[in-house]
Amino acid sequence: MTGAAGNPPARSPLPRAERIPREGARPRRGRPGHDQDAVLTAAVRLFNERGYEATSMGELAERLGITKSSIYHHVSSKQELLRMAVDHALDGLFEAADEVRAGHTPAIERLELLIRRSVLVLADRLEYVTLLLRVRGNTAVEQQALLRRRVFDAIVTDLVKQAQADGALRPDVDPATAARLLFGMVNSLIEWYSPARGAAEPLADTITAIAFDGLRTRP
Amino acid sequence: MTGAAGNPPARSPLPRAERIPREGARPRRGRPGHDQDAVLTAAVRLFNERGYEATSMGELAERLGITKSSIYHHVSSKQELLRMAVDHALDGLFEAADEVRAGHTPAIERLELLIRRSVLVLADRLEYVTLLLRVRGNTAVEQQALLRRRVFDAIVTDLVKQAQADGALRPDVDPATAARLLFGMVNSLIEWYSPARGAAEPLADTITAIAFDGLRTRP
Repeated sequence: MTGAAGNPPARSPLPRAERIPREGARPRRGRPGHDQDAVLTAAVRLFNERGYEATSMGELAERLGITKSSIYHHVSSKQELLRMAVDHALDGLFEAADEVRAGHTPAIERLELLIRRSVLVLADRLEYVTLLLRVRGNTAVEQQALLRRRVFDAIVTDLVKQAQADGALRPDVDPATAARLLFGMVNSLIEWYSPARGAAEPLADTITAIAFDGLRTRP
Repeated sequence: MTGAAGNPPARSPLPRAERIPREGARPRRGRPGHDQDAVLTAAVRLFNERGYEATSMGELAERLGITKSSIYHHVSSKQELLRMAVDHALDGLFEAADEVRAGHTPAIERLELLIRRSVLVLADRLEYVTLLLRVRGNTAVEQQALLRRRVFDAIVTDLVKQAQADGALRPDVDPATAARLLFGMVNSLIEWYSPARGAAEPLADTITAIAFDGLRTRP
């Protein structure tokens, strides 16, 4: 599974969750970045499996094979783990949006690029985006994530509007509805995509092909 | 919210969850159909709000303003409520699929009709389909639901294949991927649609327009 925490170092002091059975779990301080990555990777997986509310820091410690107090050397709270996780997903999407908005190509091309880049972000940060899309606004962190999602949606909607004004997209579809349906296709990846199915680029091609030209053949 | 349990009678013995504050909750037997509908409607809402696992029959009784033992006059278990709920969603989709498969029109038209009908089922049974789409296979009931979902997906995939064989759909898109992306758009309704946004028919038009012809204008 392509995580988003980067490749672990050869001798990660706090092993990634999936490597724990093969490696001893001897927590060591001094490389906080890697340690925190490992805690975050395991936390995201556990939140997705059991739900954020239902997961305790004790269960996370157990999964990692370390003591509960060791976790607090790396992160201050469960809420902090959630914030880091959803921000990692959102940062990927906003980096794509910022890049696209800085461009000077027609709006339809920028919209297509944003969809394409979003597919790649989802495929690369699959577990983080899965968690993000399940967030329901029960805490301040979740409400902040929902707010950032709405800002992202507004960027997509605005690109649809611009492309319609250019005459490049059909004018009879409500821009916000079009944005929601485009990302309905993109976000469905969390339900069925896995890297084992193959690279994400051809999938990005398929999604943009359907979105802009549809499935119908033309005479 | 358009429930799927039909209109309640004027004097429903066990009031629907949303009417409880206005009506006294005096459970009475003798009209089991209506009573069971009210329990089911409240259960589906509660499962969606709190999660199926996290919801107890005691909380459901509290929501309905009746005793826990009264619930067992109407349903045998929480699992039974889940089964009835997901079956209500799946039955709607399979009725659409059966109708479509009985037709003699070209595959592309039957596929379009199935997508259109599925949008209407989702809009009409929104809370039931929401619950269905969150099912993860933790119990026998959930596994059965996942199995029926896979059968439905196979029907959609098969229609895509037939339409490709007819030369009506582009041949360069994997049929299973096309089916998943089509239903990525349809299923996204559970995230953002509400009857307050307006009728579902125009939305069904928009989804089939994008799916088959895309958003791009043509010269």
